[in-house]
Amino acid sequence: MAMKKKPVTGMKDILPKEMEIRDYVISQIKETYTTFGFSTIETPCVEHIENLSSNQGGENEKLIFKIMKRGDKLTASVPKANEDANVLADSGLRYDLTLPLSRYYANNANDLPSPFKALQMGNVWRADRPQRGRYRQFMQCDIDILGEPTILAEIELITATTTLLGKIGFEKFTIRLNNRKMLKAMAAYCGFDEKDYDNVFITLDKMDKIGMEGVAGELEEQGYPTENIRKYLTLFEKTTDDIDGVEFLKDTLGDFLEPGVAEDLETIMKSVSVTKSADFKIVFDPALVRGMSYYTGPIFEISMDEFGGSVGGGGRYDEMIGKFTGQNTPACGFSIGFERIVMLLLEKDYQIPSKDEKTAYLVEKNMPQDKMLEILKRANEHRANGRQINIAIMKKNKKFQKEQLEKEGYTVFEEFYADSFR
Amino acid sequence: MAMKKKPVTGMKDILPKEMEIRDYVISQIKETYTTFGFSTIETPCVEHIENLSSNQGGENEKLIFKIMKRGDKLTASVPKANEDANVLADSGLRYDLTLPLSRYYANNANDLPSPFKALQMGNVWRADRPQRGRYRQFMQCDIDILGEPTILAEIELITATTTLLGKIGFEKFTIRLNNRKMLKAMAAYCGFDEKDYDNVFITLDKMDKIGMEGVAGELEEQGYPTENIRKYLTLFEKTTDDIDGVEFLKDTLGDFLEPGVAEDLETIMKSVSVTKSADFKIVFDPALVRGMSYYTGPIFEISMDEFGGSVGGGGRYDEMIGKFTGQNTPACGFSIGFERIVMLLLEKDYQIPSKDEKTAYLVEKNMPQDKMLEILKRANEHRANGRQINIAIMKKNKKFQKEQLEKEGYTVFEEFYADSFR
Repeated sequence: MAMKKKPVTGMKDILPKEMEIRDYVISQIKETYTTFGFSTIETPCVEHIENLSSNQGGENEKLIFKIMKRGDKLTASVPKANEDANVLADSGLRYDLTLPLSRYYANNANDLPSPFKALQMGNVWRADRPQRGRYRQFMQCDIDILGEPTILAEIELITATTTLLGKIGFEKFTIRLNNRKMLKAMAAYCGFDEKDYDNVFITLDKMDKIGMEGVAGELEEQGYPTENIRKYLTLFEKTTDDIDGVEFLKDTLGDFLEPGVAEDLETIMKSVSVTKSADFKIVFDPALVRGMSYYTGPIFEISMDEFGGSVGGGGRYDEMIGKFTGQNTPACGFSIGFERIVMLLLEKDYQIPSKDEKTAYLVEKNMPQDKMLEILKRANEHRANGRQINIAIMKKNKKFQKEQLEKEGYTVFEEFYADSFR
Repeated sequence: MAMKKKPVTGMKDILPKEMEIRDYVISQIKETYTTFGFSTIETPCVEHIENLSSNQGGENEKLIFKIMKRGDKLTASVPKANEDANVLADSGLRYDLTLPLSRYYANNANDLPSPFKALQMGNVWRADRPQRGRYRQFMQCDIDILGEPTILAEIELITATTTLLGKIGFEKFTIRLNNRKMLKAMAAYCGFDEKDYDNVFITLDKMDKIGMEGVAGELEEQGYPTENIRKYLTLFEKTTDDIDGVEFLKDTLGDFLEPGVAEDLETIMKSVSVTKSADFKIVFDPALVRGMSYYTGPIFEISMDEFGGSVGGGGRYDEMIGKFTGQNTPACGFSIGFERIVMLLLEKDYQIPSKDEKTAYLVEKNMPQDKMLEILKRANEHRANGRQINIAIMKKNKKFQKEQLEKEGYTVFEEFYADSFR
């Protein structure tokens, strides 16, 4: 078989320039989230196929990279593969970090503090149709607070994330906030059946793209009563994106809304905006759905005009860990769109602050051993003090060599010749 | 299907305590190797099955986690799977970082400097039999210099790695050095046929475990002439582990040894030991083999008494990139045993230097909103100055809660009550 030079379809080689930005963002993430008391953890990239196919992952479950059984187990499964090829796989690559985190917490709760504040950075894989800017392997970065039932979790997650974004130069972004319970209360108030909620929300989720009338049109096509739809739309029209909007819905929905839901939304909005250090706003968005069905309470998303879409989001999922343990554990998480953030920073040619000077030593070819030793010694002494020194054998076209090194960021050059150290 | 709490066989969840050490080692690796002019890069974890099965990986190729084709391609392959189950896979998880690096360089050489100094840290996967301390997913950390034909590459790789080990507290370790060409010259001198070299070296590689007489016994069992074996053993007995040893072999082997090989070994040894900043020694080990057949020149390994085995190694592999491009490119790499190093640090309860003080705020339950806002503000101000602050709702058993937090490293506690801030 011939060797292939390109990466596998939909995955990419990351060049040094992009890696510098990635490494910088990663260091800022670790530093910032650490100040909020989060601890880094790691879960294996490979997960049980049973867990990946447990209906927690929504559409992502269709995109799993499946890993084949090995040895005798594979041989035994092959004859059954004609009926269902899934029998050939015993595991797969994780498609997100939330499911592995829940398994991790279920497996290790005895050795973890409560509440537990976890920071997880790692690759996930989805066999999506390849398209510009979307890859089949990409990095996710999640913070989660497990075991904290109060909205202190939501407030800390949102504050930590907005602080991070501010530090790496983003501003004027928007945090959109809602609650799955508010979504449901609105649907109930307008006369939709509980069994139809998920379907109605899938349509509502398109509001950004098709507008309110578009949503109305689709709901009508699907055969829901016109009366319900009109009532639903009016509700959205009348609701403002601030605390008054939450108050309005609280008054309007009455008993359809669980007690405390509106108050919690207000407290989150107020706490985040009063204590904020970055330049952003937090708004109430009653049309915010978030795809995953596992959310049980507050949900939130970051919007950036520069990106024209979400660059992160999360929410409360109090019932997922219970799927592993049989006992529900409060859980709330925020995932930032690491790849999108890196893309935005690359696009605006972001300059990493306070980068150290880089020095290149150009050493004449065939330098005598004793002089070479002097050069190596000198370099190592400077390196021990944290200076960045690249030793290179001088090329015939020294001018071109220097230009290339300048492209890599080298600004200081020292030349060494056999006859004398100039 | 029931959800599974344990990680998949042979892989592990990493708890915060271990992650702290891992993160620290990673930061030291990045920092140290950067001062030597290495740039971080990343390759996808998934690699073409053709590349993974190209005989570059030796025994590792038997341990590949294979990824199933998807959709129509899978359906089309299933009927042929009875003959050869391999037709079901189109890719697999990488088993090392060297093969992906070679593909990466072949794919991106036009956008990379020459020589190119790469730092790659990432997980690799091997479906090995699970055993204590060995996992099926583990982190590798490689530095490679591509495009540098002189031994400046070897010297820089060894110096960078020993500097790193010194920084994270290791001392009295040994760098063992040899050259594949020296190995071959010794075998030729003793009368072994070229076709038998690989086989002879596999036996020689067991010297550490079975001793010189053991090696002799195995070689005799395999039917090699006693005369050759005796000559071979005498050569090893007479060769010292210093520059004199290299000189002795140079004189003895004469024309069997390619010109320059001995001189290069001497220069590497001298350069590394004269310029070293850590406390270690570099020795000549004519019995050092290194498993992989792709090595073409100098090879080296780190031994630590505390570990009783290799904690890293590498060498020159000038012919691998040519497998992708048709044109050979000088290449030399050093891989440190990241997992072993982390294990050793955990075992000796390594204390990360200058860790910041961690503060916990204990907040009485149901704190009024206005007071909670003050607490959040105060925490965020301190966090902005880099302090680490964890806000926790006060539990009934406050003493126990504090003890738990102390285990997490919190040393400063502030308590907040609704009636007054004490």
